Amino acid sequence: MDSGASTAAPPRALPYCVTFSQLLGLTAVAMTGAWLGLYRGGIAWESALQFNVHPLCMVIGLVFLQGDALLVYRVFRNEAKRTTKVLHGLLHVSAFVIALVGVVAVFDYHRKQGYADLYSLHSWCGIIVFVLYFVQWLVGFSFFLFPGASFSLRSRYRPQHIFFGATIFLFSVGTALLGLKEALLFKLGAKYSTFEPEGVLANVLGLLLAGFSVVVLYILTRTDWKRPPQAEEQALSMDFKTLTEGDSPSPQ
Amino acid sequence: MDSGASTAAPPRALPYCVTFSQLLGLTAVAMTGAWLGLYRGGIAWESALQFNVHPLCMVIGLVFLQGDALLVYRVFRNEAKRTTKVLHGLLHVSAFVIALVGVVAVFDYHRKQGYADLYSLHSWCGIIVFVLYFVQWLVGFSFFLFPGASFSLRSRYRPQHIFFGATIFLFSVGTALLGLKEALLFKLGAKYSTFEPEGVLANVLGLLLAGFSVVVLYILTRTDWKRPPQAEEQALSMDFKTLTEGDSPSPQ
Repeated sequence: MDSGASTAAPPRALPYCVTFSQLLGLTAVAMTGAWLGLYRGGIAWESALQFNVHPLCMVIGLVFLQGDALLVYRVFRNEAKRTTKVLHGLLHVSAFVIALVGVVAVFDYHRKQGYADLYSLHSWCGIIVFVLYFVQWLVGFSFFLFPGASFSLRSRYRPQHIFFGATIFLFSVGTALLGLKEALLFKLGAKYSTFEPEGVLANVLGLLLAGFSVVVLYILTRTDWKRPPQAEEQALSMDFKTLTEGDSPSPQ
Repeated sequence: MDSGASTAAPPRALPYCVTFSQLLGLTAVAMTGAWLGLYRGGIAWESALQFNVHPLCMVIGLVFLQGDALLVYRVFRNEAKRTTKVLHGLLHVSAFVIALVGVVAVFDYHRKQGYADLYSLHSWCGIIVFVLYFVQWLVGFSFFLFPGASFSLRSRYRPQHIFFGATIFLFSVGTALLGLKEALLFKLGAKYSTFEPEGVLANVLGLLLAGFSVVVLYILTRTDWKRPPQAEEQALSMDFKTLTEGDSPSPQ
């Protein structure tokens, strides 16, 4: 606890890893747009192209923005905790709103075309992940941004919030890959095995999405890259420790 | 460092979580067998049923056994480190050999039927994950079981080994879900949307596989569930620290 506090220099490799994650994420978003533009006729709300709003919104919202929201505490490591928290919350709100548009688009498209809803593994995973994401946001907001929760309650909930946040992100990426595969197989069928350009492009897009999630996870889980506590937070935390724990040894 | 060492009682919720993970994992294996038996004609090496060897072996090897190999350090927390290491390595070898049979089965089946290899996102992810799993095993063996590597080299590599181990496991599960989806769409096509029993069963299987990976990951990442260092390991580690670091503060 006595080293690395307050405005410490960021670990040397962190900026390179963050840049790499952004390159992967932005390329994935651009490639999703390229795939929909080149092979699926582009995007529109009031036509059969409404379906295409779905993959684009989900990749921007539940992959790219959700991933970036998780990185906020590593990237803005020397900002005040409150500022970082608000940015984390806002990025998640943007991700959720964009994903909501994507979800509405596919249900509306299914309704107009008379297709069944929620029959595939992709849709089952998708709806579970989307509901969990909303619940995680609500619970996170109540504990960390709403002023009511006590310090000890926050400390006990924090590891769960981090675990479920990372898990929901990973399953969002997994669900995106299932959706991509579904879209390819429905359209290409047996032609998929002839290395059609659309199939190859979509496979590369799948690997980019997977790669983005691995790099985000790597940045998140490096213990020596965690945000160092700022001077005032540390003082508060130590006061609290003394008050509640006395001389008992700290866990870990 | 002064608490929780040697034969400490396991955390109360750990046995329940481990039991739950095994229930999920074994149900997933049984359901894979049921799916192949009920809807795909069963399993045989010398016929068109050879393909079915692939999903069964991959679920047993790269999902169930790989997941269990990761849990060894949590389940056998009070055994000697060397015993636990050997068990971890052996479970991974079994997982690899079973998965290898599954990989050979699908390539052999493709060859006999004249199908193209490695065109789908599932196959791209699969071959990457399989090669990475092999490399991870080789590197892990050289660092941790082969007697050559120094204590400091092992300490530096350990976090990478854990991160890539968990990542390869998660991507194995993701790849299994992609394969399941591919098998369903190739056979059911548009009938998938009519809630065919096979589709529903396979969707449930997909959720079980995902659930197994979440519970394994939860057990792995709970910091207070990590294996406590045994008395003799602790003494060795402290001696080494004194020798190499003198009075410098320990990281974290």
